Amino acid sequence: MLPGPGGQGDGSRGPGQEGGADVLINSAGIVRKINITDEGNSDDVRAILDVNVLGVTWCTRQMFISLQCRNVNDGHVVFINSVVGHHVPAVKDFSLNMYAPSKHVITALTEILRQEFNKKWTKTKITSVSPGVVDTEIFESGSWEYPSGMPMLQSADVADAVSYCIQTPPNVQIHELIIKVKPSDVSKKSSMHSS
Amino acid sequence: MLPGPGGQGDGSRGPGQEGGADVLINSAGIVRKINITDEGNSDDVRAILDVNVLGVTWCTRQMFISLQCRNVNDGHVVFINSVVGHHVPAVKDFSLNMYAPSKHVITALTEILRQEFNKKWTKTKITSVSPGVVDTEIFESGSWEYPSGMPMLQSADVADAVSYCIQTPPNVQIHELIIKVKPSDVSKKSSMHSS
Amino acid sequence: MLPGPGGQGDGSRGPGQEGGADVLINSAGIVRKINITDEGNSDDVRAILDVNVLGVTWCTRQMFISLQCRNVNDGHVVFINSVVGHHVPAVKDFSLNMYAPSKHVITALTEILRQEFNKKWTKTKITSVSPGVVDTEIFESGSWEYPSGMPMLQSADVADAVSYCIQTPPNVQIHELIIKVKPSDVSKKSSMHSS
Amino acid sequence: MLPGPGGQGDGSRGPGQEGGADVLINSAGIVRKINITDEGNSDDVRAILDVNVLGVTWCTRQMFISLQCRNVNDGHVVFINSVVGHHVPAVKDFSLNMYAPSKHVITALTEILRQEFNKKWTKTKITSVSPGVVDTEIFESGSWEYPSGMPMLQSADVADAVSYCIQTPPNVQIHELIIKVKPSDVSKKSSMHSS
Repeated sequence: MLPGPGGQGDGSRGPGQEGGADVLINSAGIVRKINITDEGNSDDVRAILDVNVLGVTWCTRQMFISLQCRNVNDGHVVFINSVVGHHVPAVKDFSLNMYAPSKHVITALTEILRQEFNKKWTKTKITSVSPGVVDTEIFESGSWEYPSGMPMLQSADVADAVSYCIQTPPNVQIHELIIKVKPSDVSKKSSMHSS
Repeated sequence: MLPGPGGQGDGSRGPGQEGGADVLINSAGIVRKINITDEGNSDDVRAILDVNVLGVTWCTRQMFISLQCRNVNDGHVVFINSVVGHHVPAVKDFSLNMYAPSKHVITALTEILRQEFNKKWTKTKITSVSPGVVDTEIFESGSWEYPSGMPMLQSADVADAVSYCIQTPPNVQIHELIIKVKPSDVSKKSSMHSS
Repeated sequence: MLPGPGGQGDGSRGPGQEGGADVLINSAGIVRKINITDEGNSDDVRAILDVNVLGVTWCTRQMFISLQCRNVNDGHVVFINSVVGHHVPAVKDFSLNMYAPSKHVITALTEILRQEFNKKWTKTKITSVSPGVVDTEIFESGSWEYPSGMPMLQSADVADAVSYCIQTPPNVQIHELIIKVKPSDVSKKSSMHSS
Repeated sequence: MLPGPGGQGDGSRGPGQEGGADVLINSAGIVRKINITDEGNSDDVRAILDVNVLGVTWCTRQMFISLQCRNVNDGHVVFINSVVGHHVPAVKDFSLNMYAPSKHVITALTEILRQEFNKKWTKTKITSVSPGVVDTEIFESGSWEYPSGMPMLQSADVADAVSYCIQTPPNVQIHELIIKVKPSDVSKKSSMHSS
């Protein structure tokens, strides 16, 4: 969550516009190493929904209400979604359990909020950024295995995408931005294909 | 939930195979008349996720565990999904709030469970049936307005679709069945177009 | 293409209603063993579009015009689509080249025609049936390898699905029916999972 | 189509690497004012496929072959797709005929080419940019009505998106970028919602 202008009273905004965030980046998300069809997974399933769905929903609602209270009309909400929020890939060795469905919620919520923002006559924007696998602390103990050897995006790559989205002109709303990693170890093999 | 063979001991199944359901139809679902961006909606948002997502998840998990305990290998789980589980349409006068996202969960869960069922070597099937607007008690007090004058499917239409899906041969798995209403009052106007 | 009532004049339909088809099953489709990025594929790419897209389009248009000329208001057009008409899966050893895109056309055309049929006040329906791999003559010389050892649907399975779709009551339109094969050789292994 | 390095021989590339394009922007596209179900539309339907599908396919193939001949390993192909390449919206007064299906081809081709590029061990990237309605010369005589009064994106907005995509680092591949217009006339009305 990026801070908006502080309480210094620089005069660029009127009373009541201070102290809140104008841009919200919802990047919280957890994974769990479970199957939907296994016993004893209730706490894990609930935790995924609490963080990935309800956490995002409450933060977005409160930020929107704060924008309206502060008379700020040009905020921006960004969801860090996932490629599995659009399609469930065939995975061999584990289950995407409630993680992929929780990201499908984010894809749908993006459109729900786009409509609500327009109906409430605000110029505040909503954007979904959906990367493939990113090398983050989401691969912690108790969650998925660290995919060593697999090409991954870096957090800075996703941050760059967010930076692009939030600096577009007022009439341009990046609705969805899907990022995939481009394997980087192809240079030595590519010589086979050129004459 | 359709009952499986009762406890009469007709001998067609061995010990431990009695008393459970072989076919589970997850048709529970609620709607609420809220916006995501409105204050005071926490209970309603949670209720939608509890019924439409967790209710479906727990029922499916317990039914699957029951099938395995009873050594039943050919069960069938059916999700009553929705057309808004696949795409969020532009709606003018209200918000599909957490309802459409909750149905997106069902679309994703269908594929998640298909993979889990196959990995666990069971012939039990999973099917999503996604109708457009159906004339049911979902339009109760406190939920959406009853869409009078709008063509709607009847519950029996959805039941017929489910009947088709659960009677397919063992190698055929209806993964998704999307049903839309066909407007029925066109006969008088169609004469304009024929000579 | 299923024949409608012939020219015998059995009286059940008035003048001008004879001699055409009331139900059209568009099941033609070809595949080619090419890459989009290879030289010399122009004829193959064109052939896929000609058969899978234009063939289907012309047949549907002519059938619709025939229905209107014969004053038949309750026809049915069925597209035999494919699971790859909805999503392009990751495939290891070959390219889905223009085949998957040509089936994406069918998915979109289903909705285009649904809207056109409604706008023209006809009760004629449109349905897309999207199976996974089916054991047909599409695996001919020059096309893809016959996927031996892989579970496949049979043509009769798809025909059964079509039969279901075309016998629904007038207000029920099966918009999309996705069929996946259920692996059939799991019975011997399933014993591992039951106690 | 952006020009690559010319024939001046600046030495930064070896023999055979000159004279071609390293970045290809496929922005050609036509619309027609027809219905799929109307007689006499064959030429228009073919024209849409020729320009929107085959034109894009041939240009991409030749550019890719040129890259390989010139031993260029880091090209970029960009498709100017459309929001209707992902979903066919409900449209009241006209038909999206073969236009929306032709854009669905582009969505599928993006993934097809991503896989082919990776299989051929090139670092050349593929990106789909899918804007909503853009104010361009596509609204020419014989095509769709100019949507006056409707908020539209400008060509420069799409060009900016392309600029962002082609300057990402080697490991980052923008797979899909969906842009929607944000209505700009809300400032005067937004005062109703702030206190």
